[in-house]
Amino acid sequence: MSRVSSAAIAAALAPDPRSSEPLYRQICERLRRHILNGTFPAGQQIPSSRVLAADLGVSRNTIMNAIEQLIAEGYLEGQPATGTFVTGAIPRALNPSSAAPPAADPRWSSFGQRLDETMARPPRALTKLAPFRPGVGALEVFPFDVWQRLFAAVWRTRSPELLDYGHPAGDLTLRRAIAAYMRIARGLQADADQIVIVSGAQQGIELTARLLVNPGEQVWVEDPGYFGIRTALQLQGSALVPVPVDEAGLDVQRGIAAAPVARLACVAPSHQFPRGVTMTLARRLELLNWAASADAWILEDDYDGEFTLHGHPLQALQGLDGGRRVIYLGTFSKTLFPSLRLAYLVVPPDLVDRFVACKAAVDRQCPVVEQAVLARFIVDGHFARHIRRMRALYADRAEALVASAQRHLAGALTVEAPTAGMHAIGWLEDGRSDEAVSRAAAEQGVVAWPLSSCRFGDAACRPGLVLGFAAYGEAEIDDGIVRLARALESR
Amino acid sequence: MSRVSSAAIAAALAPDPRSSEPLYRQICERLRRHILNGTFPAGQQIPSSRVLAADLGVSRNTIMNAIEQLIAEGYLEGQPATGTFVTGAIPRALNPSSAAPPAADPRWSSFGQRLDETMARPPRALTKLAPFRPGVGALEVFPFDVWQRLFAAVWRTRSPELLDYGHPAGDLTLRRAIAAYMRIARGLQADADQIVIVSGAQQGIELTARLLVNPGEQVWVEDPGYFGIRTALQLQGSALVPVPVDEAGLDVQRGIAAAPVARLACVAPSHQFPRGVTMTLARRLELLNWAASADAWILEDDYDGEFTLHGHPLQALQGLDGGRRVIYLGTFSKTLFPSLRLAYLVVPPDLVDRFVACKAAVDRQCPVVEQAVLARFIVDGHFARHIRRMRALYADRAEALVASAQRHLAGALTVEAPTAGMHAIGWLEDGRSDEAVSRAAAEQGVVAWPLSSCRFGDAACRPGLVLGFAAYGEAEIDDGIVRLARALESR
Repeated sequence: MSRVSSAAIAAALAPDPRSSEPLYRQICERLRRHILNGTFPAGQQIPSSRVLAADLGVSRNTIMNAIEQLIAEGYLEGQPATGTFVTGAIPRALNPSSAAPPAADPRWSSFGQRLDETMARPPRALTKLAPFRPGVGALEVFPFDVWQRLFAAVWRTRSPELLDYGHPAGDLTLRRAIAAYMRIARGLQADADQIVIVSGAQQGIELTARLLVNPGEQVWVEDPGYFGIRTALQLQGSALVPVPVDEAGLDVQRGIAAAPVARLACVAPSHQFPRGVTMTLARRLELLNWAASADAWILEDDYDGEFTLHGHPLQALQGLDGGRRVIYLGTFSKTLFPSLRLAYLVVPPDLVDRFVACKAAVDRQCPVVEQAVLARFIVDGHFARHIRRMRALYADRAEALVASAQRHLAGALTVEAPTAGMHAIGWLEDGRSDEAVSRAAAEQGVVAWPLSSCRFGDAACRPGLVLGFAAYGEAEIDDGIVRLARALESR
Repeated sequence: MSRVSSAAIAAALAPDPRSSEPLYRQICERLRRHILNGTFPAGQQIPSSRVLAADLGVSRNTIMNAIEQLIAEGYLEGQPATGTFVTGAIPRALNPSSAAPPAADPRWSSFGQRLDETMARPPRALTKLAPFRPGVGALEVFPFDVWQRLFAAVWRTRSPELLDYGHPAGDLTLRRAIAAYMRIARGLQADADQIVIVSGAQQGIELTARLLVNPGEQVWVEDPGYFGIRTALQLQGSALVPVPVDEAGLDVQRGIAAAPVARLACVAPSHQFPRGVTMTLARRLELLNWAASADAWILEDDYDGEFTLHGHPLQALQGLDGGRRVIYLGTFSKTLFPSLRLAYLVVPPDLVDRFVACKAAVDRQCPVVEQAVLARFIVDGHFARHIRRMRALYADRAEALVASAQRHLAGALTVEAPTAGMHAIGWLEDGRSDEAVSRAAAEQGVVAWPLSSCRFGDAACRPGLVLGFAAYGEAEIDDGIVRLARALESR
């Protein structure tokens, strides 16, 4: 290949004075490109830094830096101060920009193929925080000051252990604090060794299903139910069995009729999403009995069971079972705040080691500092206090929602007074489509998830709206209801 | 079933005065148990709270609370103040404590079965922070004050968005900051839309392999190489193809000979772990060319490529490729601290949507507050400053390691002067087993990973030790080397 003149090299390297890119980087990039595409062939001498600096009107240091960089990267050989040459070590015809681009089909794995367009859409929770988006608590009254003080106290230790890798099962102090609290508060039968801290409930569902269910095996899921569970299971290739939910919770007999040998049943017995019902004792016992006879596992999703609005929260299914068939999933997304991304699994003792190994294999562990802050928050009593305050606040907000709906929506939408949790169901009274009402509500700036969007079985579904109330003040709730009434009138 | 006398009920409910369990909870538990096992049959009347309180010597309020709780949970019916009865709604013979315990074999999924005992062991990084544990930086000089100030500044906004769910791809300000920094620092060709924030490099590997490789498909992995990559791939059921690493990095021709149509090649071109070599330009081009012809993907693991100890860091493979075949994996575990659990993938544009959907499906997103703090840390220039300081510090520590080894270990162990990163290789000079030396070192309180433990192909391996130096002061390093010399003498 013919040699290139010194002047031509300088011209080819001239940086763009209007670019915000540093000169050094511009020159590096041009050098690389011309070497890779063969404009500057192997053995080509590069002019001295003095000459190039003068020709390009840049400092000699800039040129020296660029040349040193390209020597280090293997494009050039020699010494920047004396003579440098294009390396002969670059295989010919290896100009990456001429290589075939990736095929239009990236050849996703079967797993990747299952991530269809529905799942590739951003989760609905991403919509702006506005009435009546469910699944979020009263973030504005979170005890920011307490949390910051605890953060400072933890951070102040400057302990290297705080910054280093931690245990894949999670911070031991936190696991102990959770075990102690949940034993008293919810009758959980578990010690700290059975607890695995995970990055939110979604990861808890995902790890459980991945460890216990093969693709093609059956899993009972509540219908209507929480879409995040369905997503995680569908991705694994599980065969989802929709099991109807009635006033008594998951209808175990219909589950048995549909899939007697399912591997796993996912259930929210304390406060079902979205229906808001509590699973009766009889149904709980039926479910445990079925699991024992079918050698199946139960995933108890207790996403907001702490928030009984009147009276004590109920014993968890895990406690009734003695922790033998039930994997309990608790989260701090509802009790504290979602962006914390901390939740936990309570796992039967024989299963713990592999759950921990699985957590280690998928992302090693959860962040350490946040776990330490949360542990103090619980141990110092702030957690129990916050729950108590939120119970009272949510009871008021639930009442405000029901009352406002009675005032503005009588005959059109009946809001069922919730006994627990952070959302209520509003039943549409005149057979309108909840999807259509939800769209009309969105036009009025109101988030009202259609109940039917939580369905996935074939059975008919009474139309209704899922109305989150916990995150919104009474005035906001009333305003939201007025706008919802407008949406209902407009149809 | 016969009725139980009032006195017998009181006796059966008597709490243990020495227990630390609250009285209310003890009574609840006893009531539940006796109802479930049939001692208190359906229809059985429970004595009034007044009578029970007197018989048990507890406050009437305690009894009322317990009875109310069990009415709520469905064990009892009636009114605590008047008359309460054991419910008739509990199916007979459903005492959960008599149900069959889970089978000894929990019937793990194929995925769960692949989590064998090796993986179920805690990761090696869990050993105490002591010379010469690799993979960790100088945590003691982390700018704690700056981080805390930025945390306080972010937290002070008390913005509900800070606590709410965020975008599954990660904080946009952070993604922009990473794109801008990495464009200048490493020649990455990517904008913020191509970046997905993940919970550490391990999750980045796991998501990539899961999305792009089916069980049974081949993946090139460096041999010797990083165990975390192998674990993630083995769990997915990938067919691992060990590809030797020599002084020029991954030996692409041997990879092609072994597995010409692999789906993915995992490579650490900037600074290979554990060998510490930098992949030459010729090898990089060979690799890109192979990927184009095989329609394969490349995962560029750039775990500590920022820490060139002399001169500028090299351009990333992703930049050379133009971001078409290369998925770049960067992490803040080495540049900042491991317990932060933040890393990122830079993904070709056509692949981004499903990577984001996958992140959303497995754990929704990374914690929001930490991302916001990190974004400010980068934008305000603290990140670049910290990297610069660490480069100088690590260069000193690397020099101290080499010098100390020359003083105390000449003829027995030759430490190769590292050009980048946080660890060096010490070659054992007289054919001793590195496993044996590592065990002897452990007895002296010295962590020295045997190089052979990073191997998994069949080829013979020159025995050596992986010696992390970044986290230890010069005196600690010298002391560690003296103890290592003792370990070598003792054999």
